Amino acid sequence: TIDGPRLNEDIAFTSRFGATPRGGIRRLALSAEDRLVRDWLATHGEALGCSITVDTMGSQFLRLEGSDPTLPPLMMGSHLDTQPTGGRYDGIYGVLGGLAVLRAFRAAGYVPRHSIELANWTNEEGARFAPAMTASGVFSGVFTLEQAYGLADRDGVRLGDALLAIGYKGDEPCGAHPLAAYFELHIEQGPVLENEGKTIGVVTGVQGMRWFDVTLTGQEAHAGTTPMELRRDALLAAARLMVLAADVAAAHGPDAKTTIGIIDASPGSRNVVPGEVRMTLDLRHPDDAVIDQMEADFRTQAAEIARRAHIELSIEESWGSPSVPFDLACIGMVRDAAAKAGLSHRDIISGAGHDAAYMARICPTAMIFIPCRDGLSHNEAEYAEPEDIVAGANVLMRAIMAADEH
Amino acid sequence: TIDGPRLNEDIAFTSRFGATPRGGIRRLALSAEDRLVRDWLATHGEALGCSITVDTMGSQFLRLEGSDPTLPPLMMGSHLDTQPTGGRYDGIYGVLGGLAVLRAFRAAGYVPRHSIELANWTNEEGARFAPAMTASGVFSGVFTLEQAYGLADRDGVRLGDALLAIGYKGDEPCGAHPLAAYFELHIEQGPVLENEGKTIGVVTGVQGMRWFDVTLTGQEAHAGTTPMELRRDALLAAARLMVLAADVAAAHGPDAKTTIGIIDASPGSRNVVPGEVRMTLDLRHPDDAVIDQMEADFRTQAAEIARRAHIELSIEESWGSPSVPFDLACIGMVRDAAAKAGLSHRDIISGAGHDAAYMARICPTAMIFIPCRDGLSHNEAEYAEPEDIVAGANVLMRAIMAADEH
Ligand SMILES: NC(=O)NCCC(=O)O
Ligand SMILES: NC(=O)NCCC(=O)O
Repeated sequence: TIDGPRLNEDIAFTSRFGATPRGGIRRLALSAEDRLVRDWLATHGEALGCSITVDTMGSQFLRLEGSDPTLPPLMMGSHLDTQPTGGRYDGIYGVLGGLAVLRAFRAAGYVPRHSIELANWTNEEGARFAPAMTASGVFSGVFTLEQAYGLADRDGVRLGDALLAIGYKGDEPCGAHPLAAYFELHIEQGPVLENEGKTIGVVTGVQGMRWFDVTLTGQEAHAGTTPMELRRDALLAAARLMVLAADVAAAHGPDAKTTIGIIDASPGSRNVVPGEVRMTLDLRHPDDAVIDQMEADFRTQAAEIARRAHIELSIEESWGSPSVPFDLACIGMVRDAAAKAGLSHRDIISGAGHDAAYMARICPTAMIFIPCRDGLSHNEAEYAEPEDIVAGANVLMRAIMAADEH
Repeated sequence: TIDGPRLNEDIAFTSRFGATPRGGIRRLALSAEDRLVRDWLATHGEALGCSITVDTMGSQFLRLEGSDPTLPPLMMGSHLDTQPTGGRYDGIYGVLGGLAVLRAFRAAGYVPRHSIELANWTNEEGARFAPAMTASGVFSGVFTLEQAYGLADRDGVRLGDALLAIGYKGDEPCGAHPLAAYFELHIEQGPVLENEGKTIGVVTGVQGMRWFDVTLTGQEAHAGTTPMELRRDALLAAARLMVLAADVAAAHGPDAKTTIGIIDASPGSRNVVPGEVRMTLDLRHPDDAVIDQMEADFRTQAAEIARRAHIELSIEESWGSPSVPFDLACIGMVRDAAAKAGLSHRDIISGAGHDAAYMARICPTAMIFIPCRDGLSHNEAEYAEPEDIVAGANVLMRAIMAADEH
């Protein structure tokens, strides 16, 4: 069984790499802090007798050899990068929970038939380099290596160069890697399990999501002299689009979500009517057809708002991930594992994207959720109970063992 | 009379200091470009035989000695700093127009009774250091030198240090300087003169203006998992306040203006609901009582919007300048000068703040406007016709001569 205290200690210890004053973590992908936590993971993997490889996307793989070399490995994984003001659990729990499973196998002298690999995927958050889930995206053939290397952060640094800068551009070809199954352990990041008092979420799939870059172009003008009706205020029009985005979500039921997370207004001076605004838009719904409808509604009404405000509008889709159903057999293994461990559980669809969403394209995949306090994530106050942490890791271990027998 | 071609050449030449690809100027106060244009001005003042002083706020004064040393000087002035994407005329025209007047006096061998000073005021725009009109504000006793030195730009650089950095922290005490009168020449920066086909605006005063720093605090949350109704989205609430600001302007008639020029949303990640937004608000009206009403309306309705969105709201006044009536005698001199030069003219209230608004507190003051194309200012496309440029400088010269006889 899982060494619970050790797992919770690992979570507390690694939170030092990029710790923020408010108790969260700022550990952007391929930053100096990311390098430190990767080094930590490699050290602890070696101590367990794992072989360690780094692929061309910088993802780390800790491997425990199985007894039957003819079988493809079973993989666990998640990510150690965080949001700019991220929490201590998002992604981290999945990697350290996987490490706890490897440790439990070692401690028990248990040798599975399949080799077991634990992946730490590069740039899952999409906070430094958009889109999200970049390395698992290359691994599963959704993006090319060249596309990924070319992604630039807001300072213009390319992902390929950032890999080199922290010494994590590995040799192992990214994705040349048949797998028997993939399991990812994660906090829910939403309020459902907590509200219903359930310990385990049996994740049946991931909702669809689509990202857009929205640009509004008006005319810079003097704030003191330009009559309101002569203005072509890009920021005022952007404000109307933000309200529209919320209205579009409301019009498509409780599962629809729209978010503007980034906004930049130029030239950025108190007494200048902004001439240009760039902002992001994130649309989500479990049903891709509804996302299509949300996008169409937003585009139509946004065009009308822009027309009235004499603003040029461009709405470019920068990334999209259709809704993903997980593998029924893997979902069943998770559900059985929770039941056998005597843990309360329910089926749930993930609102967040995960590396598992891309891995599902190339191998049987499922996920395990545990509750997080107030459903809060992408927030420094993110928190999960130590008992739930241990419970989830036990379910991961049992699911892996079930898959190994399969 | 004014050497028109030379004046227009000076405007074209100095536009090189901070020239932008789109034909405008980026010459933030106390930047390297600002130093270059100051050095240029000093060189040309010396060539005219002016004495040159720099005061403790970095403002430059070019002085042509008058025949009667017992009389306080007459002053002309404006500024050479620009907006981040500013035009070639805003402020610059007033300084170089004043230089053209000094040159005309020299060329004609005309020695006025009063000494004539030309001021280049530091940080008029308020774009790098807020508030605007900083140096004329210290000169006229509205701000202390310590307050001004302590102002920080967005990188945290203090105005006092920026003065030292470009070598323009002078010895001359700021403001110890009795003056007979102050005249400032400027482009209108609005559409009125152009629309009515008038060459000269006889500026009777400056409208009131008030600046606010608005902060909205909600809660960072995951864009994919957090139901819309559980969000405390600081940016969505900010969007509603931006629409409110426009509505408040509309409710107070065509002279009311409201502008949000700067917005910053944290943490600034595509898949994070913003937890904090900081934005500016600029309210203007010729009647201070109406500004009071606009502010009250905004505060009341903004509080209600914030309450409904579960957002903490803070609205701090960071600066205000009440409406300013100029001196009737000085206004009369400008009106007469325009009439005697045979130029079409009309009385006008300035929508923009100017150093003259502060100078009016310590000496008789008026301003002269000329039209600018499409009423456009704080924009790289800002443009004024060469003939209007010369006409305005001639009116400035005649007004100074009238004041000298006074
Ligand atoms: N799990 C997680 O927060 N992933 C980031 C991608 C997303 O925006 O859902
Ligand atoms: N003239 C001018 O643009 N001054 C800047 C101060 C203001 O915002 O009005």
